[in-house]
Amino acid sequence: MVSNTQPATMAVSSFARMLKGQVRCYSAPLDMAIPASKQRYIPTSGTYPKGFKVSGTHVGVKASNTRFPDLALIASDTPCAAAAVFTTNKFQAAPVQVSRQTLKSRKGEGIRAVVINSGCANAVTGKGGLEDAVQMGQTVDECSGAEKNSSLVMSTGVIGQRLPIKKILDRIPTAHATLDSTHDAWLSTARAICTTDTFPKLLSRTFTLPSSPGHTYSLAGMTKGAGMIHPNMATLLGVLCTDAAVEPAALQSILKHSISRSFNSISIDGDTSTNDTIAVLANGAAGGETVQAPTTGSEASADYQALQTIFTDFAQELSQLVVRDGEGATKFVTVRVRNSPDYESARLIASTIARSPLVKTALYGRDANWGRILCAVGYTQGVKDGVVVPERTSVSFRPVDGSPILKLLVNGEPEAVDEERASVILQNEDLEIEVDLGGGEKGAAGCGGEDAVYWFCDFSHEYVTINGDYRT
Amino acid sequence: MVSNTQPATMAVSSFARMLKGQVRCYSAPLDMAIPASKQRYIPTSGTYPKGFKVSGTHVGVKASNTRFPDLALIASDTPCAAAAVFTTNKFQAAPVQVSRQTLKSRKGEGIRAVVINSGCANAVTGKGGLEDAVQMGQTVDECSGAEKNSSLVMSTGVIGQRLPIKKILDRIPTAHATLDSTHDAWLSTARAICTTDTFPKLLSRTFTLPSSPGHTYSLAGMTKGAGMIHPNMATLLGVLCTDAAVEPAALQSILKHSISRSFNSISIDGDTSTNDTIAVLANGAAGGETVQAPTTGSEASADYQALQTIFTDFAQELSQLVVRDGEGATKFVTVRVRNSPDYESARLIASTIARSPLVKTALYGRDANWGRILCAVGYTQGVKDGVVVPERTSVSFRPVDGSPILKLLVNGEPEAVDEERASVILQNEDLEIEVDLGGGEKGAAGCGGEDAVYWFCDFSHEYVTINGDYRT
Repeated sequence: MVSNTQPATMAVSSFARMLKGQVRCYSAPLDMAIPASKQRYIPTSGTYPKGFKVSGTHVGVKASNTRFPDLALIASDTPCAAAAVFTTNKFQAAPVQVSRQTLKSRKGEGIRAVVINSGCANAVTGKGGLEDAVQMGQTVDECSGAEKNSSLVMSTGVIGQRLPIKKILDRIPTAHATLDSTHDAWLSTARAICTTDTFPKLLSRTFTLPSSPGHTYSLAGMTKGAGMIHPNMATLLGVLCTDAAVEPAALQSILKHSISRSFNSISIDGDTSTNDTIAVLANGAAGGETVQAPTTGSEASADYQALQTIFTDFAQELSQLVVRDGEGATKFVTVRVRNSPDYESARLIASTIARSPLVKTALYGRDANWGRILCAVGYTQGVKDGVVVPERTSVSFRPVDGSPILKLLVNGEPEAVDEERASVILQNEDLEIEVDLGGGEKGAAGCGGEDAVYWFCDFSHEYVTINGDYRT
Repeated sequence: MVSNTQPATMAVSSFARMLKGQVRCYSAPLDMAIPASKQRYIPTSGTYPKGFKVSGTHVGVKASNTRFPDLALIASDTPCAAAAVFTTNKFQAAPVQVSRQTLKSRKGEGIRAVVINSGCANAVTGKGGLEDAVQMGQTVDECSGAEKNSSLVMSTGVIGQRLPIKKILDRIPTAHATLDSTHDAWLSTARAICTTDTFPKLLSRTFTLPSSPGHTYSLAGMTKGAGMIHPNMATLLGVLCTDAAVEPAALQSILKHSISRSFNSISIDGDTSTNDTIAVLANGAAGGETVQAPTTGSEASADYQALQTIFTDFAQELSQLVVRDGEGATKFVTVRVRNSPDYESARLIASTIARSPLVKTALYGRDANWGRILCAVGYTQGVKDGVVVPERTSVSFRPVDGSPILKLLVNGEPEAVDEERASVILQNEDLEIEVDLGGGEKGAAGCGGEDAVYWFCDFSHEYVTINGDYRT
């Protein structure tokens, strides 16, 4: 399981840190110990959905991994409604192609399990890779006595290499035999999908729905962050499970809505991988009414609306853990673009700030460099005319401690910045950047109050070390 | 002038380099000495256009600069045709606004000079900043006895701060009095526009035109790279001067064409500044016929076509110097996207590869990570349907020593890569990445042979150090 041995990550002297940077160690300690600064993001207990069992099993997909779990199995006692969002990259990994096909042929129903390996992405592996992905799902189906095509498959890790498929298939019976519903089992499963993540990312919560106040539902989710050891790619995976009953069409549209406001609103380095997949399973084990998708022209039900909000909040919290564990990250930054006449423009601007290497390195350097933020606003591509008006644009830092905002630029005019206060604000791990577009060219009158939010991290020496590393 | 004292940049032990990284020194040595590895990019002589005189003068725009030239003046004895391309950033610096207006009111004629300061970008400085930029131009006009509105103005450096305008204006008479046409004067002028550049970027060449084989023309250009010390932005400036006679409309269209294939096809970090400006002056001092722009529907003249090719080649060479001096750069990489059914898609793909932090850090780590290159191809936004077809896509490294290309991926299938050879190729400073789209979905039959090229550099620890630095 997860070791509590704390490496002296926070306590190292600057000389030791310097040496550490030079010998190019990875962000994830080789002994999988959790850095002290990340311990607080790991739950010590949870409320998990009924009828789901999970396991994390050691396979050794990477030969160098001799003992840590790298095969995750998430299984439901009964068939689930399922939905997923996949990478938009044109080079789609084999498991992405296979899972997409499974969901399609199943029409989002009758899914029993998700099986995930880390250590090898099974991407750009041709027909053989597709067969491997199919076999992983089939073997899970056989072990559980489920119908054919009942399992979704995900992989993360090295690209361009075939899976050690025999090793994986041989261990699936063990993965099935050790399925459990304990907190430790969930944590071990979350650990099994990690690559260079420094901590497992697992959340759970309970909720109720308007139509069934007597029922308590659970929602659990795990995810993994961007990480690579050559020649890997960043890969983001996520699985959400709930014991609420949700119709497949409702599940798909709720997932899509919540992901656009969470996992699709974070940036580590702006690279979109071949393997990105977030899947959700709903088995209805907690009873209550089935949440239906709104029919065309009619308003969504109260249950649908409530579940959409719950999923969106939950997905945001889960996706933020990925940012917290961004490769080499020292900062967790929220950028909020406010008072845009148009949501999509606000989102593009937030995304451009989140991706700017100059903004990200300045934040790493704790530098109140509003010029770079403004610059990114100004060069954002695809923004509608009249949205960005220099003399209506303001930039501020909003401290996380609730103290007043620090204005940097007001209506296009630089403020006399209190550098001392800026420096104090920038010492914190968390920061919120606020860009106010003042309603664009129509001003307050044209202000539709459209806001967009992105979460991102900084670019550090460690990021370069991790990603510039020689093959190991 | 430019010192030839060579700091031991290439000879430092790895321990010293490590220390250097930690104490966060800038890429440009404080004594302005040229790193040994960059000496070869500095010309020791040149062939400069007739009728132009230039000077580099010390002003001390930044108080910390007590002796290096930071005011550049480029002046023609006679009025010139002029053209310029400016940043597309919505936040346009004062000199950009003023120079654009000058060119417009002048209809590209009667320009006598370009005056440039480094150390302060005069960006986001309100009305006062606009007045400062106007005054710089006016003072140059007065010194030279030129008509009003005869000077273009550029600035580069810190954003959000007003120019020390009195200091600058007071030194313009000296800048004018020291105008000269020697190689040393050109080099000093090129040095004066630098910020964190580690070497001045200056090129010159002679050429002839079909219509006037008896005339030899000269073309000289200087540029500066992306560099910043908080709270600056990257700013790219360039000035080209020729003694050929070129009609303003021809000059503008030739400049636009050549810049799209040179300065607009390079990437250091993907950030587009508020101050980017490239201007060209043509004074006709070498005689010969005036190069005319083609009229609508008619073919361009042989002179026009020849000059366009000469300008494009020259601008490419000049822009490549910016990449050579990218902040923290250790690699000079050419990415060539071939056999695209469509030029714009090829260009978008090349640009996306050039901007990918994962590709850039892998190159820094000398890692033959074709997966990240392929990944960037796959997530490029705006590519037309049918251009990227996984099973038609190939990726190779083309060594600069002329040895055979190293195939990494052929028609979507990974090659068994000769890692030893890959490692040798990646030791070189220069590398060419070739992405062959195989004509897209129509294959060779649909292949219009459209190629696009981008030049870029890697992301290093030094890049993070330079840009993450505290204000100094």
